[in-house]
Amino acid sequence: MQRTADRPVTTLDERAPAWSPRTARARFRAGLAGPTAGVAAGHTQANLIAVPADWAYDMLLFCQRNPRPCPVLDVTDAGSPTTVLAEGADLRTDLPRYRVWQDGELVAEPTDARPHWRGDLVAFLLGCSFTFEWALSRAGVPIRHVEQGRNVPMYVTGRPCRPAGRLSGPMVVSMRPVPPERLGAAIRESSLLPAVHGGPVHCGDPAGLGIADLDRPDFGDPVTLQEGDIPVFWACGVTPQAAVTASRPPFAITHAPGQMFLTDARDEQYRLVGVD
Amino acid sequence: MQRTADRPVTTLDERAPAWSPRTARARFRAGLAGPTAGVAAGHTQANLIAVPADWAYDMLLFCQRNPRPCPVLDVTDAGSPTTVLAEGADLRTDLPRYRVWQDGELVAEPTDARPHWRGDLVAFLLGCSFTFEWALSRAGVPIRHVEQGRNVPMYVTGRPCRPAGRLSGPMVVSMRPVPPERLGAAIRESSLLPAVHGGPVHCGDPAGLGIADLDRPDFGDPVTLQEGDIPVFWACGVTPQAAVTASRPPFAITHAPGQMFLTDARDEQYRLVGVD
Repeated sequence: MQRTADRPVTTLDERAPAWSPRTARARFRAGLAGPTAGVAAGHTQANLIAVPADWAYDMLLFCQRNPRPCPVLDVTDAGSPTTVLAEGADLRTDLPRYRVWQDGELVAEPTDARPHWRGDLVAFLLGCSFTFEWALSRAGVPIRHVEQGRNVPMYVTGRPCRPAGRLSGPMVVSMRPVPPERLGAAIRESSLLPAVHGGPVHCGDPAGLGIADLDRPDFGDPVTLQEGDIPVFWACGVTPQAAVTASRPPFAITHAPGQMFLTDARDEQYRLVGVD
Repeated sequence: MQRTADRPVTTLDERAPAWSPRTARARFRAGLAGPTAGVAAGHTQANLIAVPADWAYDMLLFCQRNPRPCPVLDVTDAGSPTTVLAEGADLRTDLPRYRVWQDGELVAEPTDARPHWRGDLVAFLLGCSFTFEWALSRAGVPIRHVEQGRNVPMYVTGRPCRPAGRLSGPMVVSMRPVPPERLGAAIRESSLLPAVHGGPVHCGDPAGLGIADLDRPDFGDPVTLQEGDIPVFWACGVTPQAAVTASRPPFAITHAPGQMFLTDARDEQYRLVGVD
């Protein structure tokens, strides 16, 4: 799998948090690229994976069987680059950067997917952990990677997903260091957002997930833990890309890790109501 | 759509709440039939809908697009009558009663589906509101239909589901009368179980859902409201049967309303952890 840990983070624009999702999509369509953490703050970001129609059932079943890493927010009709989650958006152009996969190999990382798009692609938009960062932040949980101006670190784990048809692969997780006194809040707040990965899948020793070295993420950037911080791991929407690598479908287009699709939905929409 | 409101409820067995799921499945396999509310208490019950493999993607997408009425707990591989949710179970025999549908018409209601089962069927097991009744009950919410020895009343609403491929239809809801002082608890406890319909979709005036008369449910039995009770409506796993009626797939097998599949899973497994 392609590592991005050595790639410098692009600082998109200091005004990016105040952009509307429509503005963000227009900038990305015009060629701007980089990690989207904090962009159009309060609006829901999504992972993208588009596969040929004859792989769509396997992918949808893979998501159903692995709802923590793959919470489905929308599925397009075959050939359509539009989604109910973002009026006027074009999924072929409106993400900062794409990854194009052939037979499980990464073959291109364009900022415009139109030259690669096919009429038989079905696109899946999956929840992204950036969505719960607002809730964590509001509950007093520091977001270390944002503080440090980095992309969130992501790791391929030793924990297998439940296979579906021709698709299988390991679960990918994102990691955020959390001070012990904020651990309860971090677990509670993310648990209230089951549509965007929900609560953590693991806390503490990375070896519990088969992760050898926190300083060497498979995607994103390493982040520095503060004294006493506990590493907390959430299932990650890059998991389908690991399934693509492992299962080698003939073709797929995904987002580049950390460079997400900006929807018009608001993060609050996905929070369970009636609980508190 | 076939009404069952005029069918008397079978009292299964006064010991049914203490049965294990395995015992319950064995009794149903042997021919026992009737509503399963309260059977094998604490174990998760599921709605069944089995469709030909070439309709499975539409059905899975219909469920994804309508997660409140159609929360998917498991999907079988084509032709397999087994599920990870119940060791040793056979979905063709282990439900109390089935409904067999041809071109959207109900053609049989057998207690054994084997004569009708086909090798290309994919079975969907969907969460059932019986699962949150334990949580409601524990929180002091009276379960009127159980008190009154009746099947829960279910209604076809005027609210359309989001279509998926060839499938469309109205949302079906179940109704439970709740005393006003318990309304908060009822909303909170069911919201914590998003895998089994989650919180209510409507409270109060049935006209808000296009329901003309609470005393004439489309499925199940009418239930008597006590003084001050508010009718509370939850999305219901009979919704796919309404989609079958509306969309007329060539073939389907479902459970009979209120006569569910007993899984080995425990209701607590589906409750969000880390929230309280």
